[in-house]
Amino acid sequence: MSAIEELVAEFARLPGIGRKTAQRLTYFLLKQPKEHAARLARAVVVVGERVHACAVCGNLTEDDPCAICADPRRDPATVCVVEEASDVLAVERAGGYRGVYHVLGGRLSPLDGVGPEQLNIASLQRRVGAGTAVREVILATNPSIEGEATAHFVERVLQGVGVAVSRLARGLPVGSELEYVDGETIAQAIAARRPV
Amino acid sequence: MSAIEELVAEFARLPGIGRKTAQRLTYFLLKQPKEHAARLARAVVVVGERVHACAVCGNLTEDDPCAICADPRRDPATVCVVEEASDVLAVERAGGYRGVYHVLGGRLSPLDGVGPEQLNIASLQRRVGAGTAVREVILATNPSIEGEATAHFVERVLQGVGVAVSRLARGLPVGSELEYVDGETIAQAIAARRPV
Repeated sequence: MSAIEELVAEFARLPGIGRKTAQRLTYFLLKQPKEHAARLARAVVVVGERVHACAVCGNLTEDDPCAICADPRRDPATVCVVEEASDVLAVERAGGYRGVYHVLGGRLSPLDGVGPEQLNIASLQRRVGAGTAVREVILATNPSIEGEATAHFVERVLQGVGVAVSRLARGLPVGSELEYVDGETIAQAIAARRPV
Repeated sequence: MSAIEELVAEFARLPGIGRKTAQRLTYFLLKQPKEHAARLARAVVVVGERVHACAVCGNLTEDDPCAICADPRRDPATVCVVEEASDVLAVERAGGYRGVYHVLGGRLSPLDGVGPEQLNIASLQRRVGAGTAVREVILATNPSIEGEATAHFVERVLQGVGVAVSRLARGLPVGSELEYVDGETIAQAIAARRPV
């Protein structure tokens, strides 16, 4: 395989990048000054070397504990449980959440060989067990079948631990139009309707 | 800037990749085995080190001359002039063309400081001059204003050299619907209509 084909193939392994986009990226890099490609290569290497999971919450970080766990202004009594580190970013981007996180590192998916032992569930149990500061656990797994199953599993695990367990609300996304929202979402929005 | 932000920024410099996609790519790489990121970084470095412009046609290649110029089954009498090396790929992908190429390395764009000296036009003149094997030059620059201007310029440069100069046909793209094709394309398709 030529160097060009090799890079096209590597780009095409990334999610959402097809062969044509991979070619475009490759030719773009070849048109750029050499430093550009060198910087990209370095950033890829450095991220792999420096970034690891936070020992407390599992979020990806260069420090230990991560910036969120180490922030004294965050409320350690509230733990938001998410599937992936990228979900932490999504919740942070939304703004307003002042608690901390726990990253499961995936979701239950027996067909893919992901059971409870593959996820950071034991560490969550230790973190919210008796004698800890945690008062509430917010389950913020994805609203998919596996995400739901994972949330149910975590909920059962935390039964009797003495923490409040909550889930993210379901309903119509802001800015959506009823006409384009799927039936399941509408059904959940109706079931969870609130008096005005 | 953290290593994660650094890689997100580098990905976001690539064409067609916004901040959100860049984040997704970064977190994807972080979830993969380390070898994956290492392979990507290596491919980026190697492509920069090994790939250069073909001394004959300007196509990007690891060999010199490039595989197309060196292929004895290609017809050296026909030269297809394109803006970029990626355009060579596009024509090759279409299949059927058996001539060789000449890559200009861009298009005339005075506002961006790209004049005839910045493009591989002098080398094209030498290549198709008197006493050479070239019989036809196909101008295959993009059907944009700059691409047109570039084609006109090259056409003038080649006047009196004694080669046939042709352009790619304009018209309706295959599989398109009149309703969705822009007016200029329809106008050109009408002007270039052919008796059946």
